[in-house]
Amino acid sequence: MNDQSHNNRAIAVFDSGVGGLTVLKSLRERLPGENLLYLGDTARLPYGTKSTRSIQRYADQAASHLNRRDIKLFVIACNTASAVALPELQKTLAPLPVIGVVEPGAQTAVEQFPGGRHLVLATEATVTLGAYGDAIRRLDDKASVTEVACEMLVALAEEGWATGTVAESIVKKYLQPFIAMEESIRPQSIILGCTHFPILKQAIRAVVGDDISIVDSADTTAAVVEKYLLDNNSARDDGEGSLHLLATDGARRFARVGGSFLGTRLSAENVELVDL
Amino acid sequence: MNDQSHNNRAIAVFDSGVGGLTVLKSLRERLPGENLLYLGDTARLPYGTKSTRSIQRYADQAASHLNRRDIKLFVIACNTASAVALPELQKTLAPLPVIGVVEPGAQTAVEQFPGGRHLVLATEATVTLGAYGDAIRRLDDKASVTEVACEMLVALAEEGWATGTVAESIVKKYLQPFIAMEESIRPQSIILGCTHFPILKQAIRAVVGDDISIVDSADTTAAVVEKYLLDNNSARDDGEGSLHLLATDGARRFARVGGSFLGTRLSAENVELVDL
Repeated sequence: MNDQSHNNRAIAVFDSGVGGLTVLKSLRERLPGENLLYLGDTARLPYGTKSTRSIQRYADQAASHLNRRDIKLFVIACNTASAVALPELQKTLAPLPVIGVVEPGAQTAVEQFPGGRHLVLATEATVTLGAYGDAIRRLDDKASVTEVACEMLVALAEEGWATGTVAESIVKKYLQPFIAMEESIRPQSIILGCTHFPILKQAIRAVVGDDISIVDSADTTAAVVEKYLLDNNSARDDGEGSLHLLATDGARRFARVGGSFLGTRLSAENVELVDL
Repeated sequence: MNDQSHNNRAIAVFDSGVGGLTVLKSLRERLPGENLLYLGDTARLPYGTKSTRSIQRYADQAASHLNRRDIKLFVIACNTASAVALPELQKTLAPLPVIGVVEPGAQTAVEQFPGGRHLVLATEATVTLGAYGDAIRRLDDKASVTEVACEMLVALAEEGWATGTVAESIVKKYLQPFIAMEESIRPQSIILGCTHFPILKQAIRAVVGDDISIVDSADTTAAVVEKYLLDNNSARDDGEGSLHLLATDGARRFARVGGSFLGTRLSAENVELVDL
């Protein structure tokens, strides 16, 4: 399995939209030699308001499309899809490794603060599914977890207002009750439980100060991918890797918003439209 | 047509989600005797990122569903759907009257300021379609129109943060360039070109002051419906009207967010889930 032709295969990254590009960005930084293939199911976003049955079906369709394109690893870079579809996709795609975005963040927070207090910022859908709470308590039954839905942070990231007074005033409105807590009960970690939120890390840091740890679930996921490839002798080490972007609708908007997530300029011609 | 059994039929109001409830609210205030039937296609929102072909198909499906429920008038309370599907629905549903949400706002603004300067706040989809610009210039070829996409205002309304400093700072970030203009070029009217935005009228007023007129497209649409019913002797005048809410997914979220739009408490039991 770990011959060069296998290692040249792409890492597939799947999300409902542009949020997962923060995971892609971390992957590029950590693994510049890898060929990367990203699929945003923009025609059907947001997944958060869909039924679990629909989300499972969308994830199956995305996986079956990407699996036809010669890949070596599958990343679900969407919290809702990870929470709903990870176990099933691991079964369907085996022996292809499938990595979700929830476990890595939970794992990192628990390692930093055993028996600690964790605050998860996420979308309403992820909070309702309770995915982070479940994952953290599975790893550490003494941990306490509070999950807060922060829909405005998604809009803020998509609008590209990542820093500045408006961003900070919105972050503050969500976080003030926690910052105001006495130190003995205040959260020790803030887990960015939505792939949009790493964009806002600077604004969140400005609001919470340096006393609370911020766990970036995009980067922790990329770290898990990196470790897997190195452990399995599957990393590609043959010059600069390629980047291929797929979306199911709206290439122009995908390029504009996605560019700010990825930290590079994109145009609609960089985005291939596909039907799932 | 204008017998009492006809007049008892419901006014159908259709939107992709909860935004159209601002139109429903205005209808209830203006026409408390009417039976009202609302359908939010929450399973497929937002329409703004969908292709025009898909939007036309969704609108056809909604119309065909609502038309089976004994209605006397059909309101498209969604700017995107109005821009895309109004002419076709008027043909398909004839002789049932179909009223969209774009023309009434355009008409009001043009009447207030003939040859005037209009600023349209809308979603990215409505701005891209240029629906308000087209409608205004059809009515007044001397009018000047600027359309601005304000996605954060949608999120703000959905989060229920309608007033206060965060709301005003976001509104200000969008409107500051226009407020700062010299009076001779500053917009004379601000058209709320998204059915979410009437929720934010107070915050917008606080930012722009009293010198700029705010055209509420939800209320102008309700006014057009009222006039139509009175002109055609079709109004119901038989005690308090009923209210029936339909959604295609997520009854709990619909009830929570919708309640704040309607200005009443709703629970999931008030919302009937339907398949289109």
